[in-house]
Amino acid sequence: MNPFFKNSLIRCIFSLNRLHPNLSHDSRRFCHFSGDIGPGSWKSTEGLVRCPVNDVPLSPITFLERSATAYRDRTSVVYGSVKYTWSETQERCLKLASALTQLGISRGDVVAVLAPNVPAMYELHFGVPMAGAVLCTLNTRHNSAMVSTLLRHSEAKIIFVDYQLLEIAHVALDLLKKTETKPPILVLIVESDGSPPTNFSTSDGYEYESLLATGQSEFEIRRPIDEWDPISVNYTSGTTSSPKGVVYNHRGAYLNSLATFVLHGMGSMPVYLWTVPMFHCNGWCLPWGVAAQGGTNVCLRRVIPKDIFDSIALHKVTHMGGAPTVLNMIVNSPVSDRRPLPSKVEVMTGGSPPPPPILRKMEELGFGVSHLYGLTETYGPGTICTWKPEWDSLPPDERYKLKARQGVQHLGLEEVDIKDPVTMKSVTADGKTMGEVMFRGNTVMSGYLKDEKATEEAFRGGWFRSGDLAVKHPDGYIEMKDRLKDIIISGGENISTVEVETVLYNHPAILEAAVVARPDNHWGQTPCAFVKLKEGFDVDAQEILKFCRDHLPHYMAPKTVIFEDLPRTSTGKIQKFILREKAKALGSLS
Amino acid sequence: MNPFFKNSLIRCIFSLNRLHPNLSHDSRRFCHFSGDIGPGSWKSTEGLVRCPVNDVPLSPITFLERSATAYRDRTSVVYGSVKYTWSETQERCLKLASALTQLGISRGDVVAVLAPNVPAMYELHFGVPMAGAVLCTLNTRHNSAMVSTLLRHSEAKIIFVDYQLLEIAHVALDLLKKTETKPPILVLIVESDGSPPTNFSTSDGYEYESLLATGQSEFEIRRPIDEWDPISVNYTSGTTSSPKGVVYNHRGAYLNSLATFVLHGMGSMPVYLWTVPMFHCNGWCLPWGVAAQGGTNVCLRRVIPKDIFDSIALHKVTHMGGAPTVLNMIVNSPVSDRRPLPSKVEVMTGGSPPPPPILRKMEELGFGVSHLYGLTETYGPGTICTWKPEWDSLPPDERYKLKARQGVQHLGLEEVDIKDPVTMKSVTADGKTMGEVMFRGNTVMSGYLKDEKATEEAFRGGWFRSGDLAVKHPDGYIEMKDRLKDIIISGGENISTVEVETVLYNHPAILEAAVVARPDNHWGQTPCAFVKLKEGFDVDAQEILKFCRDHLPHYMAPKTVIFEDLPRTSTGKIQKFILREKAKALGSLS
Repeated sequence: MNPFFKNSLIRCIFSLNRLHPNLSHDSRRFCHFSGDIGPGSWKSTEGLVRCPVNDVPLSPITFLERSATAYRDRTSVVYGSVKYTWSETQERCLKLASALTQLGISRGDVVAVLAPNVPAMYELHFGVPMAGAVLCTLNTRHNSAMVSTLLRHSEAKIIFVDYQLLEIAHVALDLLKKTETKPPILVLIVESDGSPPTNFSTSDGYEYESLLATGQSEFEIRRPIDEWDPISVNYTSGTTSSPKGVVYNHRGAYLNSLATFVLHGMGSMPVYLWTVPMFHCNGWCLPWGVAAQGGTNVCLRRVIPKDIFDSIALHKVTHMGGAPTVLNMIVNSPVSDRRPLPSKVEVMTGGSPPPPPILRKMEELGFGVSHLYGLTETYGPGTICTWKPEWDSLPPDERYKLKARQGVQHLGLEEVDIKDPVTMKSVTADGKTMGEVMFRGNTVMSGYLKDEKATEEAFRGGWFRSGDLAVKHPDGYIEMKDRLKDIIISGGENISTVEVETVLYNHPAILEAAVVARPDNHWGQTPCAFVKLKEGFDVDAQEILKFCRDHLPHYMAPKTVIFEDLPRTSTGKIQKFILREKAKALGSLS
Repeated sequence: MNPFFKNSLIRCIFSLNRLHPNLSHDSRRFCHFSGDIGPGSWKSTEGLVRCPVNDVPLSPITFLERSATAYRDRTSVVYGSVKYTWSETQERCLKLASALTQLGISRGDVVAVLAPNVPAMYELHFGVPMAGAVLCTLNTRHNSAMVSTLLRHSEAKIIFVDYQLLEIAHVALDLLKKTETKPPILVLIVESDGSPPTNFSTSDGYEYESLLATGQSEFEIRRPIDEWDPISVNYTSGTTSSPKGVVYNHRGAYLNSLATFVLHGMGSMPVYLWTVPMFHCNGWCLPWGVAAQGGTNVCLRRVIPKDIFDSIALHKVTHMGGAPTVLNMIVNSPVSDRRPLPSKVEVMTGGSPPPPPILRKMEELGFGVSHLYGLTETYGPGTICTWKPEWDSLPPDERYKLKARQGVQHLGLEEVDIKDPVTMKSVTADGKTMGEVMFRGNTVMSGYLKDEKATEEAFRGGWFRSGDLAVKHPDGYIEMKDRLKDIIISGGENISTVEVETVLYNHPAILEAAVVARPDNHWGQTPCAFVKLKEGFDVDAQEILKFCRDHLPHYMAPKTVIFEDLPRTSTGKIQKFILREKAKALGSLS
């Protein structure tokens, strides 16, 4: 067991024994009324009792169990020629959990995975928690050094690796072996019709399907003892600082799965296309959410327009998700890669505000876009821009402006507020006064793994501090203006880089844009735009500067334009700290 | 405070203090990291922390708060000329909660209500819990003696009474005054455009709207301290024994609301017609559920076909619920009472299995019927007959047969199983072997108020025992066969009265039917049918006996037919114990 999860387990056992002092763990599912539960325990004098009959730890594992009955013969997972039903998925996950315990996995142990959205990645979201273990999904764009750092930090006992990422993993394990006597066991994931790559030998570790074959489908699930038991650890992408391990628990995962699929309008048996990486906030908790409604998971190795359109057409996809980068890629895809949509596809977008031109083009292509907002620390989705039917009749520009707002908290969260980070007072809901977005509720993380100081800092004042700056509109909807560290202060005025970028995205020649502060001797800072043009377009900096001055107050218009590819994290977020360094290197303009 | 809820409160306070020893109640929403939270508390050495930032008691109160922002100007409640928006409903509920505390209501106190589905009844579902109190909805068909018994048992401090039921309440309070020195305060509910009835004087108590006017909309909600705090007490209808007070808690109410609206396919902003009495399992938890999605509650005083059809047409109802009795009433309504449906209306039915002929006629009228099953003890809905698309192409009779099955557990429940009530072993899933339906999960009641023995009996063996007999089909769906006490044993064979009744409902002349055991010297028992004919039909017992023999194995066919109106509880359930008494009085046939 990972000693860093041991404490919470001890706490749970303690609390269980306190309540049922005479019951062993195995018999906790049955409560006896033999008089051994005295006063002060769960049994109250008013005839009420809190026991395993009416008090079961919430866990998304139950979604799979329910679907294995209610949607037994329906397709659960499809990927190329691979197709499973919900009863098969349950059996495979049970075997996986069983195999993990046979490899020595105990409660609280961490199991890592480095893979794109292939079926094994989906199965690990159930198989690992079913073994009582904690899933650690690693970003597939990490290099070996980062992978070894995260394996060391999480103390992962096993790492599942997709065949295309084997080399990264090999080097990472070699790095680990320099300091660790017991590096993680490697399990290789190959395509169902493929054979292991030549650089893999059985002495390296196990192969996924062979490992599954050693498991028992009668495995008794190691359910959480307390719903606060950890279910996963997600390392933040580290745009600015060293990665932090965000720990999710079973309760939060259950509640966020439900909230997300409800607010995404996913009815019974949706067909969900996996464009959001499952390594990102556990795919916004939807590997679990799709199971709750017996949906079909369309797995996808490459998130590229051709594969997206092909999958939608072939499987009659109803729902998908993606950062605005993915949407941008879709609307700018070559016509030859596109296919007509069989029916409207509902897309949840989040990660950064969707620029209006992208929203417009997505609608033209037949997608319905809803906008959510959240952070890794809020299990992904935390707010949604709940759409009002009366907005449908507004002019497009007004609609897109409304849709780019982050909205209101979802069902699983207690409160989202915009507060002054110093006084902790709520800002006036005037759509102008900026404050920090703060969250409170059951879908806020358990904390940063082994980083008490960072957890305390993030929870300071009794709220989770997002580090995002936003306003609250008179109708109660919030609108993000910037990252706290991205805001530009020019001549004493706050400039929202998001607002400037929105104007840039409206320019017909611009494919991608990012604005950061450039140091200035006179103004303190001025906005500096980094842009990437669409293919076949050729405009100069002067034209772009003029376009901005025509559409923005003078002080907000960039003073500098630089043409180049924008550096991004694997989840599609622009790495502004790199751009800031570049802008700094330019020196002062005045 | 009701001393019978005090213990659970003490437990919660204790548990809170244990975790945050230096925090008073009022500051519990803020957690400090000043070093006063030592080892053994919620702060773990691995950097994780469990505090009000990420751990908030689940409560359906939050649904109203969210809708008051996200659906601020949308209609929340409509009733005749009365119409409120979600922001108005929140304000009214806050004022109600405030007024209750001004009347002296403390945490854990019981507030009773005797009213049909009028707006005040809806508001009490939020206002009472917001005051930290426990809502006790009384059956509007109870007589004064029963009302006084339940007021005494629940120790209600206040009773809200609809003007049409004032006389019942007056007599009940007079009865109470004989033994109680402090009977409940009476609050009269009148129609918004009506004046108090002549038999009400201000010395009797308060009037609802005037009381609300005394409340403060800035009231600070008394949120549950522990999500296991009671939210309501629902007295069972008492078909066979004295009523028992089933206690619901905030956690269960939150989870069952979500599960029920998800499985009813209620998307964003449904229009819900209140045909299910809110006094029955808190309207299957949907007063809370409708708030979760910003729906519109169409209130209804009289559940009669004309008002149902009128409401559907006027408000464009999308969803409603009702026991098969209500469905029967709809399909047998005079054509003059009907109106065309503006679009398909989704109806959830439950309480008893829907007879196929009723399902067929409902579909013909344009309703979509889904079938759920549960008990007061499971917060209403506990299972749902999840519909499979491949069943759509089956012949109607097969479809209706499948739809009459009780199905699988809903999302909020952990497990539903059919077990041998003695050995507690699961029955074989062969569709034949009968056992008792048993439940386990978070939406099983806290217990029977002040009836420890009954709670223990119901939870014996670690499961909630429903008292219903059912089989499990090979596909995992359950099908109820009878109440444990209703089953007929004839010549050693079990006869499901439900199966015999289904055949009777297929007879074109029969409006209502119920089958009970008649004592028999030779067979032990034989089936005795009580039937009510449709208007204008005239058939004799012989024809009905023959019809049954033509459609059932001989031993299952009734030997006796009696024509009469069937006695029902207010929730539409046939009171079989009355019929059994009548059948017994007939003596043996052989």
